[in-house]
Amino acid sequence: MSTPAREPRQERSRTTRRRLIDAAVECLGELGWSGTTVAEIAQRAGVSRGAAQHHFRTREDLVTAAVEYLGEVQVAQLRLRAEQLPPGESRIEPVVDMLLNLYTGAMFRAALHLWVAASSDDALRAVLAPLEARVGREAHRVALELLGVDEAHPGVREMVQATLDLARGLGLANLLSDDERRRARIIHQWARVLGSSLPEPGDTPKRPRKREITGLAR
Amino acid sequence: MSTPAREPRQERSRTTRRRLIDAAVECLGELGWSGTTVAEIAQRAGVSRGAAQHHFRTREDLVTAAVEYLGEVQVAQLRLRAEQLPPGESRIEPVVDMLLNLYTGAMFRAALHLWVAASSDDALRAVLAPLEARVGREAHRVALELLGVDEAHPGVREMVQATLDLARGLGLANLLSDDERRRARIIHQWARVLGSSLPEPGDTPKRPRKREITGLAR
Repeated sequence: MSTPAREPRQERSRTTRRRLIDAAVECLGELGWSGTTVAEIAQRAGVSRGAAQHHFRTREDLVTAAVEYLGEVQVAQLRLRAEQLPPGESRIEPVVDMLLNLYTGAMFRAALHLWVAASSDDALRAVLAPLEARVGREAHRVALELLGVDEAHPGVREMVQATLDLARGLGLANLLSDDERRRARIIHQWARVLGSSLPEPGDTPKRPRKREITGLAR
Repeated sequence: MSTPAREPRQERSRTTRRRLIDAAVECLGELGWSGTTVAEIAQRAGVSRGAAQHHFRTREDLVTAAVEYLGEVQVAQLRLRAEQLPPGESRIEPVVDMLLNLYTGAMFRAALHLWVAASSDDALRAVLAPLEARVGREAHRVALELLGVDEAHPGVREMVQATLDLARGLGLANLLSDDERRRARIIHQWARVLGSSLPEPGDTPKRPRKREITGLAR
């Protein structure tokens, strides 16, 4: 049986991939897209350029994998943290807190470098635009799930989209200075507004409760 | 009197400054910060490098002036368009429409290149961070004015801040693809939420009307 020999090789390959992705994120954040080359990433990952190109032929392939991976990590972390929350209405503030803090770290900074570069680089845009849409849809799905709402209710889809667009705007505001205190007040306020305008968690569109205060069905 | 001779020279100087600023915005949008040099901007503006440096010693000076100028133009345009709106409650949707479309054009794209570059360039960050704060405060002041609300009401400041952060998030979402249709639905929904959560225009915090539906004073 070749399994015992193959397993460590697969393991090693996964580790190399992961190190290349981590190095790509670090490199993007520090040097931007123009400084992010396969050679630079390979060096930071402690991998030969050939080995790096065995995994990822071009830097576009590499950053695509990185964005995809980061999206998955983010969603997994959200789900994990959400599992530890109490059920019911008291969830809304911690969930909004998680969502509105989603884009305040190094991952968003790296992605931002890519988005901005892609806005004037057609080849990069071609790989990034569909990927961005996919990662965005996944974030939206998780947000619905965490908030426990059904987007068949009129207005719910837009409120959840607005929450994630607001999160990205807050990420931008955090780019050049530490915006945590201001953001905390916005999070608190937004949780109140969402709490009174979203339908009750688990509510179905056929029999909306609290209709008079949702402000969504008018 | 030297006025007749001085006037055209001042006028010429203003025109040159303006052309340099326009060229800087164009250049940032196309080449990013790394490609934005005084020489490149001067060439695009049809001005000698020496003349460009007479107006702006460094590219940092030039882009600072550009961000400042763009902020002023934006505020002036907002005020002008707001003057043409009907008074009263029907203002809220067109005002929200203006605010949430603020960052969807070439100016935001140019500014984004700068912000992202500044996040890993200390010299650029040092000039940009205070300027960004000043331009942001001015946008906030105008938004309050257009919405006709007083931020002495609890929650109003945060809702107006959230509106502008959301606007920047929507600008980001519009970077790689035309996001206009989705944005229009969010704008419509956001106008409803703001309409029911902000106090009546002109209301003072001492005697809040419609307190029961503001959802802000609880």
